[in-house]
Amino acid sequence: MTTSDHVVPDVFSQGKIGPLTLRNRTIKSATYEGLSHKGKVTRDLVDFHVRHAAGGVGMTTVAYCAVSGEGRTDRHQILWTPEALPGLRKLTSAVHAEGAAASAQIGHGGPVANPKGNGEPALAPSRRFHKTTLSFAREATKDDLRRIVQDHARAARMAVEADFDAIEVHLGHNYLASSFLSPKINRRTDTYGGGLQNRARLAREIMTAVREAVDDRVAIIAKMNMDDGVPGGFWLDEAIPTTQWLEADGTVDALEMTVGSSLLNPMYLFKGDAPLNAFAEVMPQPIKLGVRLVGHKMLREYPYQNGYLLEDARQIRAAVNLPMILLGGITNKAIMDRAMAEGFEFVAMARALLREPDLVNRIQADSSVRSLCNHNNRCMPTNFTGTRCVLADRGTTRSNTWGTQAGYAS
Amino acid sequence: MTTSDHVVPDVFSQGKIGPLTLRNRTIKSATYEGLSHKGKVTRDLVDFHVRHAAGGVGMTTVAYCAVSGEGRTDRHQILWTPEALPGLRKLTSAVHAEGAAASAQIGHGGPVANPKGNGEPALAPSRRFHKTTLSFAREATKDDLRRIVQDHARAARMAVEADFDAIEVHLGHNYLASSFLSPKINRRTDTYGGGLQNRARLAREIMTAVREAVDDRVAIIAKMNMDDGVPGGFWLDEAIPTTQWLEADGTVDALEMTVGSSLLNPMYLFKGDAPLNAFAEVMPQPIKLGVRLVGHKMLREYPYQNGYLLEDARQIRAAVNLPMILLGGITNKAIMDRAMAEGFEFVAMARALLREPDLVNRIQADSSVRSLCNHNNRCMPTNFTGTRCVLADRGTTRSNTWGTQAGYAS
Amino acid sequence: MTTSDHVVPDVFSQGKIGPLTLRNRTIKSATYEGLSHKGKVTRDLVDFHVRHAAGGVGMTTVAYCAVSGEGRTDRHQILWTPEALPGLRKLTSAVHAEGAAASAQIGHGGPVANPKGNGEPALAPSRRFHKTTLSFAREATKDDLRRIVQDHARAARMAVEADFDAIEVHLGHNYLASSFLSPKINRRTDTYGGGLQNRARLAREIMTAVREAVDDRVAIIAKMNMDDGVPGGFWLDEAIPTTQWLEADGTVDALEMTVGSSLLNPMYLFKGDAPLNAFAEVMPQPIKLGVRLVGHKMLREYPYQNGYLLEDARQIRAAVNLPMILLGGITNKAIMDRAMAEGFEFVAMARALLREPDLVNRIQADSSVRSLCNHNNRCMPTNFTGTRCVLADRGTTRSNTWGTQAGYAS
Amino acid sequence: MTTSDHVVPDVFSQGKIGPLTLRNRTIKSATYEGLSHKGKVTRDLVDFHVRHAAGGVGMTTVAYCAVSGEGRTDRHQILWTPEALPGLRKLTSAVHAEGAAASAQIGHGGPVANPKGNGEPALAPSRRFHKTTLSFAREATKDDLRRIVQDHARAARMAVEADFDAIEVHLGHNYLASSFLSPKINRRTDTYGGGLQNRARLAREIMTAVREAVDDRVAIIAKMNMDDGVPGGFWLDEAIPTTQWLEADGTVDALEMTVGSSLLNPMYLFKGDAPLNAFAEVMPQPIKLGVRLVGHKMLREYPYQNGYLLEDARQIRAAVNLPMILLGGITNKAIMDRAMAEGFEFVAMARALLREPDLVNRIQADSSVRSLCNHNNRCMPTNFTGTRCVLADRGTTRSNTWGTQAGYAS
Repeated sequence: MTTSDHVVPDVFSQGKIGPLTLRNRTIKSATYEGLSHKGKVTRDLVDFHVRHAAGGVGMTTVAYCAVSGEGRTDRHQILWTPEALPGLRKLTSAVHAEGAAASAQIGHGGPVANPKGNGEPALAPSRRFHKTTLSFAREATKDDLRRIVQDHARAARMAVEADFDAIEVHLGHNYLASSFLSPKINRRTDTYGGGLQNRARLAREIMTAVREAVDDRVAIIAKMNMDDGVPGGFWLDEAIPTTQWLEADGTVDALEMTVGSSLLNPMYLFKGDAPLNAFAEVMPQPIKLGVRLVGHKMLREYPYQNGYLLEDARQIRAAVNLPMILLGGITNKAIMDRAMAEGFEFVAMARALLREPDLVNRIQADSSVRSLCNHNNRCMPTNFTGTRCVLADRGTTRSNTWGTQAGYAS
Repeated sequence: MTTSDHVVPDVFSQGKIGPLTLRNRTIKSATYEGLSHKGKVTRDLVDFHVRHAAGGVGMTTVAYCAVSGEGRTDRHQILWTPEALPGLRKLTSAVHAEGAAASAQIGHGGPVANPKGNGEPALAPSRRFHKTTLSFAREATKDDLRRIVQDHARAARMAVEADFDAIEVHLGHNYLASSFLSPKINRRTDTYGGGLQNRARLAREIMTAVREAVDDRVAIIAKMNMDDGVPGGFWLDEAIPTTQWLEADGTVDALEMTVGSSLLNPMYLFKGDAPLNAFAEVMPQPIKLGVRLVGHKMLREYPYQNGYLLEDARQIRAAVNLPMILLGGITNKAIMDRAMAEGFEFVAMARALLREPDLVNRIQADSSVRSLCNHNNRCMPTNFTGTRCVLADRGTTRSNTWGTQAGYAS
Repeated sequence: MTTSDHVVPDVFSQGKIGPLTLRNRTIKSATYEGLSHKGKVTRDLVDFHVRHAAGGVGMTTVAYCAVSGEGRTDRHQILWTPEALPGLRKLTSAVHAEGAAASAQIGHGGPVANPKGNGEPALAPSRRFHKTTLSFAREATKDDLRRIVQDHARAARMAVEADFDAIEVHLGHNYLASSFLSPKINRRTDTYGGGLQNRARLAREIMTAVREAVDDRVAIIAKMNMDDGVPGGFWLDEAIPTTQWLEADGTVDALEMTVGSSLLNPMYLFKGDAPLNAFAEVMPQPIKLGVRLVGHKMLREYPYQNGYLLEDARQIRAAVNLPMILLGGITNKAIMDRAMAEGFEFVAMARALLREPDLVNRIQADSSVRSLCNHNNRCMPTNFTGTRCVLADRGTTRSNTWGTQAGYAS
Repeated sequence: MTTSDHVVPDVFSQGKIGPLTLRNRTIKSATYEGLSHKGKVTRDLVDFHVRHAAGGVGMTTVAYCAVSGEGRTDRHQILWTPEALPGLRKLTSAVHAEGAAASAQIGHGGPVANPKGNGEPALAPSRRFHKTTLSFAREATKDDLRRIVQDHARAARMAVEADFDAIEVHLGHNYLASSFLSPKINRRTDTYGGGLQNRARLAREIMTAVREAVDDRVAIIAKMNMDDGVPGGFWLDEAIPTTQWLEADGTVDALEMTVGSSLLNPMYLFKGDAPLNAFAEVMPQPIKLGVRLVGHKMLREYPYQNGYLLEDARQIRAAVNLPMILLGGITNKAIMDRAMAEGFEFVAMARALLREPDLVNRIQADSSVRSLCNHNNRCMPTNFTGTRCVLADRGTTRSNTWGTQAGYAS
């Protein structure tokens, strides 16, 4: 990967991911919206994505839609059921009307799932006690895994039916596939545990099932960890060959690398302030109690800097030829240009777009525009009440109709 | 708020706040002078402001003049009584003679007031013990609040009579209005406590009373906190809608945002050194004892940098259309230019002008001039003996006549 | 040493060390390869150096070949015996075929030697207990020293026979000669202890014996500490006269200055992350136990920066006229240019070349190329299983033939 | 003091201090040489200053020559007696031969004096126990002070007889005059204690006596503290009026401002490393014991930066019109230029010239030359054995003749 052998594209030029062409190379990355209700799309959720689509991004991502009931991290989370389809179609249609593409993030929460909301235990590579939920996660059987792989395929097919342009499979943050990758969490002794080939098996089976389900009708993106942020966890040395296997499998059209563990070190992704008080306040029990007990350890602060995942992502960029989406600290034109120069084809933004949904349009109009996001991370706990930047919207992004029949998008 | 849709003004060009036009866009912000005596203006206080007016600022601010007796933080503080008027007129006249405008800062100390000097308890949203004064503040009744709102109106009318060009209402630093805004200090359960709408009620009522009292005869400035500097205190997320309500109320001509709590974290405003020894030495009892007991906690040091409130103030700048005055670390032309480019209409300076009252004139003559202020903050405790930069004037700004009949300005 | 009295050479121009001319001024410095077997060269070791030779360096260095059995730090380490010669010749021949020169690093581990692998105690200036090996090192007698000096001469002669172009004598890292230099480790009262003249005696005798053994048939390089990184250890003030004596002795053609102590502070050389877990995992017992016991103290982290040994090395550069090789944080063209401008004739690279063996070629083609090495130092413990960058090669650089008869290079 | 109203001189142009013209504006500031013997000049001391004179400075300063026996900090220190004169004349003559001027630093050690070496107690403003010497300093009587003032006058006259070009009076580092200035050390209740006017009385009397003694036959320099580096000690706020009084008294031709307290915080001057071990090793008893007991507190480290006293010295520069000599972190042309641009007429260098006595000549020849001084401060304790940079001269600057009859300069 040298800087001399390719023409550096403009971030505002069109970009391609598999069969999909985006109007520009910016993507609203998934930030769990907290706006769906009983597994279905609400008008508020449509509004949320229309806001971002109108703000200029090339594609907006509907965050975490669970492929299986026991994989939900929240009881209201979108679940890939026939009942959800009409709402999802309303959403994609509204996003398309703004000229943007829509991506559906699909996945299984694994040990991060909420056993209380789901009414069944979370699944993990090995039985383990989780301090934040004060409950045991059950060891997934091989039958569980077979079923879950097929659940991904089914979800992918439904995403195509719902007119999504891309499917982003969640292989990060110690959700199910990521917890299997982790040498720290995965203690299995069967073909899904042990060496990296075994630990990566589930992720690859999922990607293969998704590819087979949708072929190249939509773009397939894998979101995967480079570093769990935990001593002994999944790290770059294993992420590199894993991405190379995915590339060789031909199951992925683009990679979005991320870091951190929703179980063990969530702030590793969210550089900036660690809003412990704000978090504890809004978390439902028993998580609230867990945050109070172990929060200081879990919500360590990491310094923010522009493009803070670039140094790690360069390691992957040098190892594969797949198009890559750079995430982490993308808030201005300079860092976008840097990403393009380093060989990334796309940039993904999250908190900065919560603060200013029209930031992309404004940067395109004036490259000196600086984001108002100050990395206070108080957006993090708002996903329990309607995700928002508290400096942009103190109240809630849940309107009065949320939770009522009139609130559903369809 | 983009940088491309307006012409950036020169800081040395004329600027308007409501009905008032200033010769340039620099303002001497309020630094309690410690020069008034028994509630009246002294010659020393006039000299103090003439010095700053002659030094080039567009407007000088007479610091904290109490609207009610129990709201004084110092027994000698100016109180809006008929006896104070002649001296105040002398002051404004002398300032005008130097080509500058004069602003009167009015307010009620609330829990920051000095119960010993005032001979009555301080008032607060809820009864509370204050460690620095070793006394209880009384919970303000609704009758108290009605009276105090009217006291602000009366003070504003007298300020007009005294020929002030602007009135700056003190809504910051956990003084009375600010202590009502604070979710940490305000524990009321009536219409002045609870949600932000309730907590902001007193501040809005005060501003409305002031506007009604003076109409647009003078400029009305609100000085308000963006961040109390205390976990659980008033913060940007609540400051933004509060300023938007003030804008909608039409009661304010310009905003000057500040930070910190005179009760809980005064150094949060005064970045730089924390002169604990110097402070304890000159404080009257029982505050001296309090400083010794809790001083290390209260006088934490914060690193100084140019324009240190800019990152926070940008959040407000983006939320309202009111003219704004940027305060905090304004000491040279470069940061003045930066403030103008970021959309602030004025800059306010305090410590740097104590060090060099003619700094504005000198910067206008030579944009490379660097301030001599080294943020040692030893000016802070001098407000008990005549405020000064100890590097500019080791003695006192109280002349020999201070405290005698000959010392009064009228 | 001024910058004005010499023409600054290009790092990619030819450079001379004694009788040797290199195609350019970059050198792969010694990183113990962990690829030899029972004292002999393996095909894997040849491949390792061919990789680096093909990658563009002017010379590659075969790391630490022990001059005496009890000086080995690893049981498989190359030992200068007739049995080793054929393999060494294969290695030099293969390196030459790529246009690069080959250097042999020779030395005696002294207190760093592995008593368990060697079947005999380590030698040190004075008897001492070593926490990492949990064993006592024996005090070297004068007879030991005489023998070891001659062992160096013998090793040097064999290196010439093996067609090496340069011999690098290891006088650093508290290996034997370096432990004699250290005022902290060397407590002898004979002619080899006490003042610096005495403590430097062994190093000088070794260099004299090497020079006498090979005359100027090959280049002779001394690798010596500037700073053991230990309070009371060998430091710059003693390194300066020691290098001046070596220059006066006429026994050295070039100096490569290093820092740190394999006994007391190994991370002092390896700025960047301290991979304690990774280290403990792969260390053989009893070292593993030792690392767990004292590892946190021994593996302190030091911040990485480009050319991190330059400030110290300048002190030597100013004191001698010998050609010098700058080591430490050389990863891009800018720091190479800086080294040349500061009067160094060569630069040596280690970790960056493990990450990308072709980095030199790529920098020569495009001076903007940035190294992918991120100083994670997880290469350090890999020397027990085949040295590699874990981001470049997760497995091992030991092929399947390693340890079998087919694996020997000859 | 603006930057626009004067032409910035080149540091290598001639400069004037009172009646004296220097060939350039660089001065070797006093670093106690440890080379005199029994109060007289040695050949080694002459060589020391010839080295610096030949190296290019405009003037070299003979460090601390005691005006009274009980004011010596070392038993071998030069004392202004007729026996010392011939040696001093040899020294000035040798310096003049190199084209440089010679300055004599005169003073009284006060509480810093060495009671054991002097055979009499140290003198201080008030009786006090000194932890480093484990002895009591006696309170100086008014008679003592009268005598000491006259001792300064006598010393000044003898300096003129010895053909010195300048006299630098030591008013810093909590030596006698400086200890009187300190509100922390000076607890007197007579006319020499209390307010600053009283505390500054001794310093002013000394300067007046010196001026009267030598008129304008030589240049008179005052070296004075800006900051003792101790809470409650002498600080900028008192240094400013004190220098203004000296200027008004007409007793000073130039000011050299310094910081720190040889009693309480010596490292405050010597930014960089704190060589505690090296210091303890060479200190005579009982100081060695004292260093071990309180050393960590006394030898705190302060970060080094170029021109590290500039921010403080600017405060004085703005308050007086006297020529000023900037000391502290002057090691290259850029900081010299900055000093000139800020209105300083001279720069003084110490450690950098110990490292490279010819640094001034080399900077003049090539403005890009960087100093080799790395602020390790191991020069500090060498003043007990012949002051030197241990990186330039590990041994001693005392030759074999030192301490013998042949060693005296005359």
